[in-house]
Amino acid sequence: MKVLVVGANGQIGKHLVTIMQNKDNLEAKAMIRKQEQAAVFEELNAETAVVDLEQDIDTIAKAAEGTDAVVFTAGSGPHTGKDKTIMVDLDGAVKTIEAAKAAGVKRFIMISSFDTRREAIQAAPSSFAPYVAAKHYADEWLKRTDLDYTIIHPGALTNEEGTGKVKAATEVERGEVPRQDIASVIAASLENDSTIGKEFQVVGGTTPINEAIRAL
Amino acid sequence: MKVLVVGANGQIGKHLVTIMQNKDNLEAKAMIRKQEQAAVFEELNAETAVVDLEQDIDTIAKAAEGTDAVVFTAGSGPHTGKDKTIMVDLDGAVKTIEAAKAAGVKRFIMISSFDTRREAIQAAPSSFAPYVAAKHYADEWLKRTDLDYTIIHPGALTNEEGTGKVKAATEVERGEVPRQDIASVIAASLENDSTIGKEFQVVGGTTPINEAIRAL
Repeated sequence: MKVLVVGANGQIGKHLVTIMQNKDNLEAKAMIRKQEQAAVFEELNAETAVVDLEQDIDTIAKAAEGTDAVVFTAGSGPHTGKDKTIMVDLDGAVKTIEAAKAAGVKRFIMISSFDTRREAIQAAPSSFAPYVAAKHYADEWLKRTDLDYTIIHPGALTNEEGTGKVKAATEVERGEVPRQDIASVIAASLENDSTIGKEFQVVGGTTPINEAIRAL
Repeated sequence: MKVLVVGANGQIGKHLVTIMQNKDNLEAKAMIRKQEQAAVFEELNAETAVVDLEQDIDTIAKAAEGTDAVVFTAGSGPHTGKDKTIMVDLDGAVKTIEAAKAAGVKRFIMISSFDTRREAIQAAPSSFAPYVAAKHYADEWLKRTDLDYTIIHPGALTNEEGTGKVKAATEVERGEVPRQDIASVIAASLENDSTIGKEFQVVGGTTPINEAIRAL
């Protein structure tokens, strides 16, 4: 299964490409913004595509062509300028969704934030609410397509080494989770079609990732 | 016909309430952010509701209850912080749409910006693109509801006195248009159900407003 990783140069993205390139059944195509970012992926023997998310749908669709799935793990993050929040976290995500449709790629995995429900926008502190809103509308857009989507809502991301174990369910208590484990959750979701049409929260836990994903 | 005007204290909003209160068939309910803004509407004998668009859907729905139509003409404008662009121009608009649905108000008029198509987001200068994107997603949200919507795309707004004449069509050449004339276009749209399900651009022109609206 060949998978376009949008946001490959991000921290989750790099873990994900590494995990995939070490598996027989998954093959990453790393979508990166700049040619200078390619070296790390070439070392992993991963194909790259240089595309900026501010480019148009057709350009992103060309990168998606010939792949079997798209993972969106790009993100301006909650602390960038709010212009990027709209243009990357919302519009970049929607363009990637539309690009997958245009390229005929049905499987789509969205890395969202922990809680993107309407209530979470209202409850968020005013500095964070625009980010939650952007992720909310991106998730809503995806849910209204006929793509085979999975939406992953990670807890507070850390750079700790992955434990290989998580807690995953529609709703879990807020908690931390290593980025490396989220990358493993993405890979496990790609390997388990039972996650199609589902969204779930993930934090650190005690259940082996494959087992946690299959139990969803 | 009683109409909730969301963004009544804005420049188009004030013109609109004035026009409506001088007509026998239209009656404005002015939604304003602060009690201090009420005086001008009380002078016009218009009912007021004090609601901030950052409040929740239920609160906005209470203001919409008992009205026959909702007009969304609130806007942070293209030059406010991009946090407001998401929270008012996009999320405030979507909450107002959902509030209309919750209150059982079918008729909805959206004041959008001149061009909110996907191509316009791509073509906009980077400082303006987030505003265009926010308006794009608000318009898209409305079009996917079963509300009786009309989306008005005004040209470059001026504070000139209205001429009572415009040019209106699905696509017109970019141009200026007085805010007072846009308020008249809104009133004419409320009076003409033939505008339901339509969206159109409006600039200054030579056709009397009622005639231009009926010809759409």
